[in-house]
Amino acid sequence: MNNAMISFIIGSVLKIEGILLLGPCAAAVWYREQVGWYYLCVALFCIVCGWLMTFRKPANPVFYLKEGCVATALSWLVLSFFGGLPMYISHQIPSFIDAMFESASGFTTTGATILGDVEHLARATLLWRSMTHWIGGMGILVFLLAIIPLSGGSNMNIMRAESPGPSVGKLVPRVRHTARILYLIYIGMTALELIFLLCGGMSLFESVNTSMATAGTGGFGVRNDSLASYSPYIQWVVTVFMILFGVNFNAYYFIVFRQFRKAFGMEEVRNYLLIVLVAILFVFCNIYPLYSAADGLRHAAFQVGSIMSTTGFSTVDFNLWPQATRAILVLLMFIGACAGSTAGGLKVSRIVIGFKTVKKELTAYLHPKSIKKIQYEGKPVEHDVVRSINVYFITFVLLFAGSVLLISFNGYGLETNFTAVAATINNVGPGLEKVGPAVNFGHFSVLSKCVLIFDMIAGRLELFPLLMLFHPGIWKEAGRSSRLGRYLSKKNLQ
Amino acid sequence: MNNAMISFIIGSVLKIEGILLLGPCAAAVWYREQVGWYYLCVALFCIVCGWLMTFRKPANPVFYLKEGCVATALSWLVLSFFGGLPMYISHQIPSFIDAMFESASGFTTTGATILGDVEHLARATLLWRSMTHWIGGMGILVFLLAIIPLSGGSNMNIMRAESPGPSVGKLVPRVRHTARILYLIYIGMTALELIFLLCGGMSLFESVNTSMATAGTGGFGVRNDSLASYSPYIQWVVTVFMILFGVNFNAYYFIVFRQFRKAFGMEEVRNYLLIVLVAILFVFCNIYPLYSAADGLRHAAFQVGSIMSTTGFSTVDFNLWPQATRAILVLLMFIGACAGSTAGGLKVSRIVIGFKTVKKELTAYLHPKSIKKIQYEGKPVEHDVVRSINVYFITFVLLFAGSVLLISFNGYGLETNFTAVAATINNVGPGLEKVGPAVNFGHFSVLSKCVLIFDMIAGRLELFPLLMLFHPGIWKEAGRSSRLGRYLSKKNLQ
Repeated sequence: MNNAMISFIIGSVLKIEGILLLGPCAAAVWYREQVGWYYLCVALFCIVCGWLMTFRKPANPVFYLKEGCVATALSWLVLSFFGGLPMYISHQIPSFIDAMFESASGFTTTGATILGDVEHLARATLLWRSMTHWIGGMGILVFLLAIIPLSGGSNMNIMRAESPGPSVGKLVPRVRHTARILYLIYIGMTALELIFLLCGGMSLFESVNTSMATAGTGGFGVRNDSLASYSPYIQWVVTVFMILFGVNFNAYYFIVFRQFRKAFGMEEVRNYLLIVLVAILFVFCNIYPLYSAADGLRHAAFQVGSIMSTTGFSTVDFNLWPQATRAILVLLMFIGACAGSTAGGLKVSRIVIGFKTVKKELTAYLHPKSIKKIQYEGKPVEHDVVRSINVYFITFVLLFAGSVLLISFNGYGLETNFTAVAATINNVGPGLEKVGPAVNFGHFSVLSKCVLIFDMIAGRLELFPLLMLFHPGIWKEAGRSSRLGRYLSKKNLQ
Repeated sequence: MNNAMISFIIGSVLKIEGILLLGPCAAAVWYREQVGWYYLCVALFCIVCGWLMTFRKPANPVFYLKEGCVATALSWLVLSFFGGLPMYISHQIPSFIDAMFESASGFTTTGATILGDVEHLARATLLWRSMTHWIGGMGILVFLLAIIPLSGGSNMNIMRAESPGPSVGKLVPRVRHTARILYLIYIGMTALELIFLLCGGMSLFESVNTSMATAGTGGFGVRNDSLASYSPYIQWVVTVFMILFGVNFNAYYFIVFRQFRKAFGMEEVRNYLLIVLVAILFVFCNIYPLYSAADGLRHAAFQVGSIMSTTGFSTVDFNLWPQATRAILVLLMFIGACAGSTAGGLKVSRIVIGFKTVKKELTAYLHPKSIKKIQYEGKPVEHDVVRSINVYFITFVLLFAGSVLLISFNGYGLETNFTAVAATINNVGPGLEKVGPAVNFGHFSVLSKCVLIFDMIAGRLELFPLLMLFHPGIWKEAGRSSRLGRYLSKKNLQ
């Protein structure tokens, strides 16, 4: 295990986080908020620690998948810890575990909050919450790779860890050049939404926050009622951008290079948009008696877009909607949006390949000798990809069941427990009943909050990198490669 | 497609069902119940139809897996239809769909009922309900094979369809000789329970019904409060036998042949008993404040044994128990008991292999070149078995999600919908909330009942045989092989 390299990467992440923490400092200066000092302290601490850890470049840059996993998982834990620290020490969030929950929820683009009242928060803190979404959406390590050169193979091993998925999980650069274009698209679309929101009369501060939270498919709002009190125009703009940020970014890449046929021919994107459309229609018909036609359509589109893209904004308390619509929304949480977007969930491509696997199994009963591979995006899917999707499903289900069991000790009903885990592991945000859009996660016990934090990070990293930390082999290897381990083994050899 | 052979098998099943229907007729004569005439009519109709369908033995006995699936699925549909018919025409159950639900629930050993009051039923009907459990537990087609000789390969193809599973699903005879021994064990254990119950002062009629329902891990009771009003001795006897009928019958086979080391060394059986023990302890501690120590232990053991073995009897309304216990019970529904028993659920072996798959995946991250196979029962598990378990999980999850969505149109909460599907697809019986042990399934809509009947049969046949009926290829082939199809294709050739 290349311990030196892992600590070098964590150091780099710390440095970046320190620099990013200067954002809320600037906001604090602008709005003359005392809370800025706390952000500054943590920022400086991160920068100094990061600088010390990256002072000497490791002699051996070779980096395998296991190291990629460990570095990614630890980086995300460190990221969440230092992201929550200023909120805790500034007493914006008085409980330590709550601050950690809020920070992890931000970086993983979940948007589940423990705060009942966000309007009393300092603007610096509100900005920082939205920034965590925006940073988490694109993946901080992938961002690191886009600016810091590492040896070729090492790059891939980090990328696989931060975004595995059937093809690729989040915005993933295969080449550094591609990466930069994808980031430009990401920044460009965020800016575009910002402009549209400003045109609708939203204040600059709220527009910046909302567009960052939409871009990362996060869901932290700056008002207590999420987006309910904004004009229909604003709500429609956010609806459209939520759905757009759930699209596989490769489609935009193709559009930028004018390969329109490729862009519009992507099977996953077409499936995604089809599901969105059908779900909106269904919900619209189901809630029709409750609203006027225009309001009903807007609310249906907003909630479906918000849940399916795993953003988690809301314009109404959909916890009060009819049961069939609630069931549809829970289902959408699990489906999630496209791979290669900023969204969470199982991803449309995994679901579609799952269906195709079942169909293939039935065909195998009919023609036992047929060995046709599953086709996806016009290409045959390799057995290894199918296998890894299968294993992903099983891991997901087992982790899910274990989490529901652990948080059932709170004494809440199955509906609350089930949707709380669904909303966190899929990085959505709000669930139903006691974790519905009108309430928050603050009432859970410390144990439950720890479980949900784990689920959020596991869901964001697509399970395996975080689970790796619980594999005893990892710690044995890390111990052997540490200075003490090397010293002891040398002594043994003598 | 060998249509002649499929109709021959369905005919044989009908004959057997007709003969079995004489059981309630005898009970009606004994208890002087008018309702017996209806059972006699249906019995004679089944025997005549069956006799006509099996009058001529098909010329071509070759039989592939696809035919095995179709024959099995259709047999179970026919079985449920004619099993429910006498209850409907005798007005014991006035609604047609309810009668079908009750019958399917019986044969699939689910034990979910649509009746609020079973004590007003004729004794012939009560006996028939328990008999369906007992017949369904061992699998009627496998029984058919044990008495009717078919060509070798055909046997296997029916057995695979009625009981696939990782190794083998229900009591499965690999050789006819083995089959008979397994059936003798089944009958012997049922008789043993009967004796124990009679010793406890239960009436003969109730003892026969209870022991048949326990043996098939069914769960239809003869009293409205299930087993709550019986003595602690009776409840303990049923507890022990419920757990015993969840054990892989191969273990008993080994015991009969004095291969004790093999019997007690079975990994699945040990895992099963361990889970039962841990669950009982956990539930006992969780419900401790509600009962005295002796009562608490008895209720905990009974409910855990009942749910884990997917029987579905109850001694208390566990819907009122603490949330953590409810969550445990729902989890146990999905785990189910051992493969090769009469129980439903995913089966312990699938769950354990699922966990091992996840562990192997993590190890593959650590040592990408390792190609060690998963070990189970001391032997390496073939890739094909692992793959089929993976596909089984995915199919299960997709079918589950679809079913929950469909029954959510009733307007009930997620907890009711989720546990209603869990209780039927895993062949358990009672769920939570509106389908808890103190209530019944009568209040669902016709559509929901159809979905739940489908789930029960799909769960009993381990999904694929029933799903095969929805594969268009099956009907195309069946059409081509029919007389009309052959005539048309001949005409085309000329």
